[in-house]
Amino acid sequence: MALENKKNENFGEWYLELVQKAQLMEYSPIQGCMIIRPRAYFVWQQIQDFLNNKFAEEGVQNAYFPMFIPESMLKKEASHFAGFTPEVAWVTKGGNEDLSEPLALRPTSETIIYSTYAKWVSSHRDLPLLLNQWANIIRWDTKTLKPFLRTREFLWQEGHTAHASREDAEAMVAKALNWYREVCQDLLAMPVMAGVKSRSETFPGAEYTTTVEALMPDGKALQCGTSHNLGQSFSKMFDVKYKTNDEKQEYCWMTSWGVSTRLIGAAIMLHSDDKGLVLPPKIAQVQVVIVPIFKDLEEKKMALLSANKIVLQLREKGVRVHVDDREDKSPGFKFNEWELYGVPVRIEIGLRDLAKQGVTIARRDGIDKDFVSEEKVIDFVLNAMQDIQTNLFSRAKLFLDSSIIFADQYKDLKIGLEHKKLVQAYCCDEAAEEIIKQDTQATSRLIELTKEEGKCVITGKPTKSMHYFAKSY
Amino acid sequence: MALENKKNENFGEWYLELVQKAQLMEYSPIQGCMIIRPRAYFVWQQIQDFLNNKFAEEGVQNAYFPMFIPESMLKKEASHFAGFTPEVAWVTKGGNEDLSEPLALRPTSETIIYSTYAKWVSSHRDLPLLLNQWANIIRWDTKTLKPFLRTREFLWQEGHTAHASREDAEAMVAKALNWYREVCQDLLAMPVMAGVKSRSETFPGAEYTTTVEALMPDGKALQCGTSHNLGQSFSKMFDVKYKTNDEKQEYCWMTSWGVSTRLIGAAIMLHSDDKGLVLPPKIAQVQVVIVPIFKDLEEKKMALLSANKIVLQLREKGVRVHVDDREDKSPGFKFNEWELYGVPVRIEIGLRDLAKQGVTIARRDGIDKDFVSEEKVIDFVLNAMQDIQTNLFSRAKLFLDSSIIFADQYKDLKIGLEHKKLVQAYCCDEAAEEIIKQDTQATSRLIELTKEEGKCVITGKPTKSMHYFAKSY
Repeated sequence: MALENKKNENFGEWYLELVQKAQLMEYSPIQGCMIIRPRAYFVWQQIQDFLNNKFAEEGVQNAYFPMFIPESMLKKEASHFAGFTPEVAWVTKGGNEDLSEPLALRPTSETIIYSTYAKWVSSHRDLPLLLNQWANIIRWDTKTLKPFLRTREFLWQEGHTAHASREDAEAMVAKALNWYREVCQDLLAMPVMAGVKSRSETFPGAEYTTTVEALMPDGKALQCGTSHNLGQSFSKMFDVKYKTNDEKQEYCWMTSWGVSTRLIGAAIMLHSDDKGLVLPPKIAQVQVVIVPIFKDLEEKKMALLSANKIVLQLREKGVRVHVDDREDKSPGFKFNEWELYGVPVRIEIGLRDLAKQGVTIARRDGIDKDFVSEEKVIDFVLNAMQDIQTNLFSRAKLFLDSSIIFADQYKDLKIGLEHKKLVQAYCCDEAAEEIIKQDTQATSRLIELTKEEGKCVITGKPTKSMHYFAKSY
Repeated sequence: MALENKKNENFGEWYLELVQKAQLMEYSPIQGCMIIRPRAYFVWQQIQDFLNNKFAEEGVQNAYFPMFIPESMLKKEASHFAGFTPEVAWVTKGGNEDLSEPLALRPTSETIIYSTYAKWVSSHRDLPLLLNQWANIIRWDTKTLKPFLRTREFLWQEGHTAHASREDAEAMVAKALNWYREVCQDLLAMPVMAGVKSRSETFPGAEYTTTVEALMPDGKALQCGTSHNLGQSFSKMFDVKYKTNDEKQEYCWMTSWGVSTRLIGAAIMLHSDDKGLVLPPKIAQVQVVIVPIFKDLEEKKMALLSANKIVLQLREKGVRVHVDDREDKSPGFKFNEWELYGVPVRIEIGLRDLAKQGVTIARRDGIDKDFVSEEKVIDFVLNAMQDIQTNLFSRAKLFLDSSIIFADQYKDLKIGLEHKKLVQAYCCDEAAEEIIKQDTQATSRLIELTKEEGKCVITGKPTKSMHYFAKSY
């Protein structure tokens, strides 16, 4: 039942084996598209709930815009769209007839949404306009499919806001990025670094792009969410104007921000091990599995009696419990299966446990089994779940922190990358970044602005831009 | 602020004016596609929550399948797909290259889902397989756009299940239909009739289709949800087989069922009036609006003090409250606006109310204003919300019941339809149905099987099939 590939030995194959055997995804007949199975889709629903709550607190409302974008509309803002053109899928036929104008399937929705905002915004009283949509996105990527991380269709949310001032837009960009940091860290137990993207990695049309990035066990960075300050470029393209308090016409300041189903892949890749999936309890569809151990029906009945008592109490506390009372599988088979599926806590109830008026509890994050007496089971499980959530985060945080090294020489940067580190280095401009990229395949993941100047590892010029370099997904 | 069109005078125009002015939808630049605005999308989210809870109780899990379906897969089951071919939109280009095979955008997902089920099902232990997906659907309809009711892209859920026996599949079909009855009646306050579709109205490839139908104020029926027993036709087409307990290979018994965002349109059309939107409290984004009435800032402060106390208490009870403290709008303007937006309960707080230590409360379903003393406000509001929910349902039920007439002669059927009734009549077969359709544009909405035989209104032949005829959306 365990995986054939090892996380430390052949990481790429291990991941592909994991996502299939743990029933997280299935390949589809369409090249580059995958099926998200319930165990993984459940994670997405938790992400949706988490963010919808944040949105509601801040007055961001959900809406839905068409997935089609007319070609003419795209041409209107060619500078933005040029970045997407090679990846656009086109609908050219409806029913038996050719369309008079090809329709793009949204690779992102700035154009369709902002052309509508122009109708809705006329006064400062209409601002801020804060909308989000949960939608499927199509990018006809020619690279190889990587389940969850790179697929031609994926699910995401995209927030699109219009504001009366640059400051309001900047505050919104920061707020969204903070939600993304929270969803990664507090829900998915995945530590991230937050910062600004370099010019060459900035969203087409944006003034600047902020990002949260996680580090995967193979030393590659993974962009988990981005939040863009679009300034007034889109409002000028689409004529999104408002009348100020003193009757002047001004262009709106806009932002957009999104996270996608790739977050599922990131969390899976980060936490799982050679036995299979490891899930932080908050995103596990089944948080606790109870395995009654029996040799005959009489024993089964006794074990189930005890199991059902625990189930009722745990459900009352909001815990998602499953009892695996199959008769045609051995306890050992069941243990392995639920470990493969990433269930955080396993409760075993056998005759020996019953005799001692307790149960045996095993944690998926690898700490030994415990015998727990009946009256302490519920507290023990609740604590274990909290502890697993924290433990997975701490473990990943330790890995991230220990992976960051500073390089003040270009050769150290290269050595760092060879050792799969996330390398901090001063870098003065796009040209220098490009040299590093060509040479090492690593890109600047984010920039930290420092108070003191440092020397660019390529040009030696003084700069305050400290970049984090890594290869990336 | 009130609508220019009257519901009783020019229903079609009234509906179009309503959905725009109440900010439920916006036209998009793409012909046949619309934008769902937050006030309407919120209704969809309530429908999602309602059904997701039912699904979870029954073990139906959410998943996500690609929106693309290869042409070759469609050809494989031509009998089913023939019904959709004229409405399929085709992707023929990805990036700058022509695709080797055109991809259909899903008009429904039986084919892609069942070809996958064939991989997942091998033993009776894999059954039942109960999945649902929330997705966007594309049908390149050539008829005119009708907001929510007929659009080329819409949102829906589609349940797809595989079972080990005909009985299990039949039970699932009935269960899903019952969920749809509940979502219509208990959430949307919209009474429906449930029954079986006639042969000519059956889903392509299904053994039979069950339906819930609502009656709109203009006498047209609206199909609100359908649940199909697919028998073994799809399992044979896609080779979805399982091994029985005694090692025999059998084809699965399958079902599919769905409701869409047209439900939003149905509820809106049914309940609203000449002042604008009327929403059952359960689906209203704002359930209670508080309008402080003031002439100066001192009065405003006093009214807000009282308002905020009520807000806190209502929020504690889970009520969605908004305080409209704008200074540049008159109370009258605000009353009209919130009536247009369908807020079920309005609380007015003026000096006169404060002096008497109470507030004035108005209900959107048209019953007079009440003065309510401070200590009774919360109970009054909670009761009012329940009462409005019930009242809207009862009102609609009365309309539905009084709209049903029985015709034992064809001329009575025609007179009934002219008077916008839902006409019960015996009808013996498809040919007879077709005559009625050609003659009156009315279709059989559903069939009730009666114990006693009656005479077909067209042929005079005895039959137990009592149909309900109406024009439809």
